[in-house]
Amino acid sequence: MLPDIHANESVFTWAAPPLKFGVGAIDEIGAEVAALGAASCLVITDAGVRETGFPDRVRENLLAAGVKSEVYDGVGVEPTDQSIAEAVAFAKQRDWDCYVAVGGGSAMDTAKAVNLLTTHPGELLDFVTPPIGAGTAPWLPVKPLIAVPTTAGTGSESTTICVIDFLGLHLKAGVSHPRLRPALAVVDPRVTVSLPPQITAASGMDVLSHALESYTSVRFDAKPAPEDPMRRPAFCGANPISDVWCEMALSLVGKHLRRAVLNGRDLEARTQMALASTYAGTGFGNAGTHLPHANAYPVAGAVKNYRAEGYPEMPMVPHGQAVSATAAAVFRWTYPADPARHLRAAQLLSGRTFTSTDGADALPEVLTELMTDIGMPAGLRSFGYTESDVDTLVDGTLKQTRQLAVVPRPLDRAAACHIFHQSL
Amino acid sequence: MLPDIHANESVFTWAAPPLKFGVGAIDEIGAEVAALGAASCLVITDAGVRETGFPDRVRENLLAAGVKSEVYDGVGVEPTDQSIAEAVAFAKQRDWDCYVAVGGGSAMDTAKAVNLLTTHPGELLDFVTPPIGAGTAPWLPVKPLIAVPTTAGTGSESTTICVIDFLGLHLKAGVSHPRLRPALAVVDPRVTVSLPPQITAASGMDVLSHALESYTSVRFDAKPAPEDPMRRPAFCGANPISDVWCEMALSLVGKHLRRAVLNGRDLEARTQMALASTYAGTGFGNAGTHLPHANAYPVAGAVKNYRAEGYPEMPMVPHGQAVSATAAAVFRWTYPADPARHLRAAQLLSGRTFTSTDGADALPEVLTELMTDIGMPAGLRSFGYTESDVDTLVDGTLKQTRQLAVVPRPLDRAAACHIFHQSL
Ligand SMILES: [Zn+2]
Ligand SMILES: [Zn+2]
Repeated sequence: MLPDIHANESVFTWAAPPLKFGVGAIDEIGAEVAALGAASCLVITDAGVRETGFPDRVRENLLAAGVKSEVYDGVGVEPTDQSIAEAVAFAKQRDWDCYVAVGGGSAMDTAKAVNLLTTHPGELLDFVTPPIGAGTAPWLPVKPLIAVPTTAGTGSESTTICVIDFLGLHLKAGVSHPRLRPALAVVDPRVTVSLPPQITAASGMDVLSHALESYTSVRFDAKPAPEDPMRRPAFCGANPISDVWCEMALSLVGKHLRRAVLNGRDLEARTQMALASTYAGTGFGNAGTHLPHANAYPVAGAVKNYRAEGYPEMPMVPHGQAVSATAAAVFRWTYPADPARHLRAAQLLSGRTFTSTDGADALPEVLTELMTDIGMPAGLRSFGYTESDVDTLVDGTLKQTRQLAVVPRPLDRAAACHIFHQSL
Repeated sequence: MLPDIHANESVFTWAAPPLKFGVGAIDEIGAEVAALGAASCLVITDAGVRETGFPDRVRENLLAAGVKSEVYDGVGVEPTDQSIAEAVAFAKQRDWDCYVAVGGGSAMDTAKAVNLLTTHPGELLDFVTPPIGAGTAPWLPVKPLIAVPTTAGTGSESTTICVIDFLGLHLKAGVSHPRLRPALAVVDPRVTVSLPPQITAASGMDVLSHALESYTSVRFDAKPAPEDPMRRPAFCGANPISDVWCEMALSLVGKHLRRAVLNGRDLEARTQMALASTYAGTGFGNAGTHLPHANAYPVAGAVKNYRAEGYPEMPMVPHGQAVSATAAAVFRWTYPADPARHLRAAQLLSGRTFTSTDGADALPEVLTELMTDIGMPAGLRSFGYTESDVDTLVDGTLKQTRQLAVVPRPLDRAAACHIFHQSL
């Protein structure tokens, strides 16, 4: 009576937290927390974001709604096991009913980890995927976490993932579980108005890259079916829902990122970029990122002296810069996997029409134009890398199995080398 | 430092349950329920759907996963307070950890009500919006409800609403609360393959109408800001997220509904219609339906003798038929509110290009063509209505305040009369 079950994967999954979006949304957090029945709430942020005044504005809004509240502003630029331990120690001084994270990926990821470690016994490594950690799944209820992104970029407000730098182990690893997904994402474009141009540019390129990578990742039904349907990979690959959101995000970034970088007070451009970032989080969060993100880990991890303008005074390659440094070369290389999609992406980003005679160069050229216009670093040499670093970078990329699983062409060492050389 | 808060509404909200979509998804329900830690699960369905074999297939799948399970197949064609009381009495015979609804809107709405009334004291009317009911908000945790739609139409798998016919009061009323939203929507296109053509047609027109109404409803930011942000109306109006999904759904319905009606075993067409219905539920569930749905309540409610082919042997106007009976006249009348959107909708549905010279007739003509092709009743006379019924129908429409709040033109009695006369 029924058609046969396919041998290929035939199912995709999708999930996103409830969303409150718009100018003024941040001033409804007190009411939202009170409606949850929470009597106390810890606001988690970093020192830089606190200077914008928004975390204390949230605190006052909570107090006005009858919710006891404090602000913790000790979030690190990149969350480490150590910075998270400090945040957990602070949080444990009292019993919080609710958490609000105000900031970029660092604040949101820290809040996820604090929520986990204040509701569960054990330490962070217990929850990290093996072989690095013990891979324990959180088994107890956590507190509601409300995520308020202040950079239109990360998408962490919608995801189940937090990424931590384990200082002793010299590596970054992630904890991912549906219980870590925020209970509500509150996206208020006004909050991004004071973001400096360099952060706006890098965060915007991160949104763009999430969209492009998801859009060009392996289709969910071109992969083999999973042996255990409850243990599907974290990234399910391109699917009919993620495609819709990716196309919308590409078109919004193409139209509004330049404006948001050039004039941060352009609320229309800020709103459209916040929307693009929301599309990334809610729409294609679990379709999957592939090679530009896989490359970004070693590019950010092996940095020695590079300091990014607009960012804290320390050697670091901001995530959005690390991701976009190899994007042009990656998408030239992935072009044969689906030429029509690459041409369509170039069209959505630029508003111009491309045909197969434009070929593999169309999308890389559109990306390079945009990056030049918004002042993004032009290649890996900007971060201090040379030919002699390529082997190390390739080693780092080849370890990123989660991303490599959805790269649309088989990647070998030679291809990875070629991409890094092209990106110098 | 900050721009003024607008006097108009500036915030929209959006939420949807996690989704598992694809051929074979239904066979993962046992694993999903077991992963929730549930040891027992009641499958709620109706006798007609039970004949397809799917509810018992779910039960076997649950048993195989170690979850005790029974099937309740007493769901009414339209859930009434009486049919729900019977379902609740059945459910209360034991303490279920989880519910699975397999069916159309009736089964899913019944399961929501059963979940509410087995976890809360009180009766259904306590939870109905005033002035009909007491308007109590559910205050206790409910059990996880997994919704498995078997008609690509209702969208109930994604919403917080259940609609009940109160027999003693001679009216339909809804209970709506975030706690009633299913914990997971499982959409398996195979489940819709055996749906008769008439139900496929009516359900498909319901999806189409959800999309068209949301797309043409008042924009969220063209309404006044709410006095209390926690008491926003159920329908927030058209917004940038709902717009994307509406356009996609219109295009899918335009391309695939005819095929799904003409050949029910066309799995590609069934998959695309299931996707369109999912877009309706997840993408624009809370943007809002307006006049065709407001009209559908009295059209369905005042029916005397009409029996719909393919449906149970009783006087009833199926929801999708009731909704689409006045659609052409409604969209001719709403055209001036946003001509470009109406023309674009006609284009998405038909694949043809329209300009302002085609005017108000373009969309109604496209709708009429489609309805003719799939054998939908041609007007209110088909249900037995005449000129003398128009006053009664108008009275019924003017009571639907939730829908009327997002009609894109001010509606007076004369306009409502005109639309019903045109729809005869
Ligand atoms: Zn990223
Ligand atoms: Zn409907």
